[in-house]
Amino acid sequence: MADATACMGRVERLRALMAERGYDAVILRNNPDLRWLTGAERTFDDEVAHTAVVTAGGLWLHTDSRYYNTFVERLGSECAWALDMEVTTPAAWAARRAAAERARVVAVEDTCDLAFYDDLLVELSRAGVACLTPRLHGDICDLRMVKDAEEVELMRRAQEVTDAAFEHICGWIRPGVTEQQIRVELENYMLSHGADELSFGSIIASGPNGANPHAQPGERQVQLGDLIVMDYGAGYHDYHSDMTRTVSVGEPSDEQRRVYDVVRRAHEESAAAVRAGVIGRDVHEVAARVIEEAGYGEYFGHGLGHGVGIQIHENPNFNRRWDRPVPEGSVVTIEPGIYLPGRFGIRLEDFGLVTADGYEPFTRSTHELVVVGK
Amino acid sequence: MADATACMGRVERLRALMAERGYDAVILRNNPDLRWLTGAERTFDDEVAHTAVVTAGGLWLHTDSRYYNTFVERLGSECAWALDMEVTTPAAWAARRAAAERARVVAVEDTCDLAFYDDLLVELSRAGVACLTPRLHGDICDLRMVKDAEEVELMRRAQEVTDAAFEHICGWIRPGVTEQQIRVELENYMLSHGADELSFGSIIASGPNGANPHAQPGERQVQLGDLIVMDYGAGYHDYHSDMTRTVSVGEPSDEQRRVYDVVRRAHEESAAAVRAGVIGRDVHEVAARVIEEAGYGEYFGHGLGHGVGIQIHENPNFNRRWDRPVPEGSVVTIEPGIYLPGRFGIRLEDFGLVTADGYEPFTRSTHELVVVGK
Repeated sequence: MADATACMGRVERLRALMAERGYDAVILRNNPDLRWLTGAERTFDDEVAHTAVVTAGGLWLHTDSRYYNTFVERLGSECAWALDMEVTTPAAWAARRAAAERARVVAVEDTCDLAFYDDLLVELSRAGVACLTPRLHGDICDLRMVKDAEEVELMRRAQEVTDAAFEHICGWIRPGVTEQQIRVELENYMLSHGADELSFGSIIASGPNGANPHAQPGERQVQLGDLIVMDYGAGYHDYHSDMTRTVSVGEPSDEQRRVYDVVRRAHEESAAAVRAGVIGRDVHEVAARVIEEAGYGEYFGHGLGHGVGIQIHENPNFNRRWDRPVPEGSVVTIEPGIYLPGRFGIRLEDFGLVTADGYEPFTRSTHELVVVGK
Repeated sequence: MADATACMGRVERLRALMAERGYDAVILRNNPDLRWLTGAERTFDDEVAHTAVVTAGGLWLHTDSRYYNTFVERLGSECAWALDMEVTTPAAWAARRAAAERARVVAVEDTCDLAFYDDLLVELSRAGVACLTPRLHGDICDLRMVKDAEEVELMRRAQEVTDAAFEHICGWIRPGVTEQQIRVELENYMLSHGADELSFGSIIASGPNGANPHAQPGERQVQLGDLIVMDYGAGYHDYHSDMTRTVSVGEPSDEQRRVYDVVRRAHEESAAAVRAGVIGRDVHEVAARVIEEAGYGEYFGHGLGHGVGIQIHENPNFNRRWDRPVPEGSVVTIEPGIYLPGRFGIRLEDFGLVTADGYEPFTRSTHELVVVGK
């Protein structure tokens, strides 16, 4: 059952923002935001099937018959949300709700699709309502940056499974197994040891495939001399972990070890720069500088890290474009990499909590280059 | 490597639509549509990281460094698409491309999020371009309804794995195993036997949980007398299968058998009504009538079926709102169900091809009520 107190705290944070902006109502369609506000665990799936309207005094959630009973069970009978499964379009439902509340400033979360917004304007006009529709633009993402104790605990639990899976897979990999077999073994282990979901389809990229940061696992058999990039995570009650380790099949070459050490140094020096209030870009630059000074600047093309929570990519970010401070209580990855096209790739990723004066990784697995398949 | 001929056929179908509507350019952000148009297998993931601009003479795809090499590999050197990984925002990139092409009617796919659209208007104005932005509203979904031979073959392959997994799991279930354990065993089997992805997180809902059509598997142990609803599918090269079977742990009660027979009859009578040109709603009504006449009308709340392809929910649909003809070559599920709150649920789902004069299910598993755990 949802922790009603924690969730009402989240609703009140949204209402404070609404009051400050002068919004009479907000319309939300984004499942992760709805999961966060309602606390309904393991109810929201990939379908955009729900719509919420929030006002200073009311909380309405529109869903359909497929989900209704699950919401009732998850939210409990004391629930502050009024559930509705009227058979209508989401836009018509939201427009009628806004009209009934005499809302004149109806903020719309701009993660909604354009089709819903187009419909909403038609339905508002049909309901005879003249209103302004300012955008909630990343505002709830920003509220969600700061995690409460329950959220942190769920992610620590997810990471425990993830670390255990790493230990397991290191003992399991042998030359000749395919990337896809490694993936299945890894994911099966997580789902059999406490994960109730995967964070995403695991990346298992061996040898030259490792040079594509988002490679999908295939039929390539790993062989002695390969590095294998493994990027994966566990879901636990809708929260997630995210971790990458690069392992060596048999003893690594001197070059592989040298590049690994650059990535490790980039990781550890940037992690040491994290604390509440630091500018996200500055943390990225610490890692980028280490890699550049080692001569690999052109082979690190992605951002250093991103927030994690209900979604795998949340705010805040460590990248060139993120020039805002990183708040205390955010949960962020650190994942520098070097990718040598046609040869190999290396990435080393932890995730953890930003505190007043530092960074507490949830990840417990070693930063040493692990040799497998011996 | 992408089948360039099939994919250029798809592009030409889009261009024919553009010519008919008078669009100079279209802007696309929806990964399934981009997968369909480019043919780049297993490259698009959950991130909205790509933007395409299509004109009568040009094909441009914007991505970032994480995906670039994979696109180059997948599309081959003869590729008609110009790849670009300029570091900029998708909206700015698309606006500049539209301006360079002197496009005056720039259609936008309305599956894009409102934030992208808001940005695009700003960037078009910044580029000094005055243009109309009509919506592509479900148009590419409609083009995608009609599957070509390659697409059908991929889904047949996906369903072979899915049928094999059903046989496996029926022999594996015993009283005392949890829903989550069943899920892991089922998914592991699929991923070890040819699936390269899951269609979605499997629904394994036992006993009273079966009455929630979209229940997520939990720690409940299955027991003698339970029915178990299992709704799952395999992904193969970005195409999917979708299947539901309800099995009985030990001998079912007379009532369970009776309700099962109603669902089976609803399935088979509605399947017999399918052929190219039939109105989607009419097929739904065949099943709804069978269920209603048996006295369970209020316990079948969802639509009878939906298209399947790159996405799990595509056009066309068999439901009350879909009043259009179902075209030859579409691939659709048939999945009636009866859900008795607090007691049990039953759903029976096949999927297959709509032909000129009927329906060819890809699903080979029996429609009999299978008894497991004996």
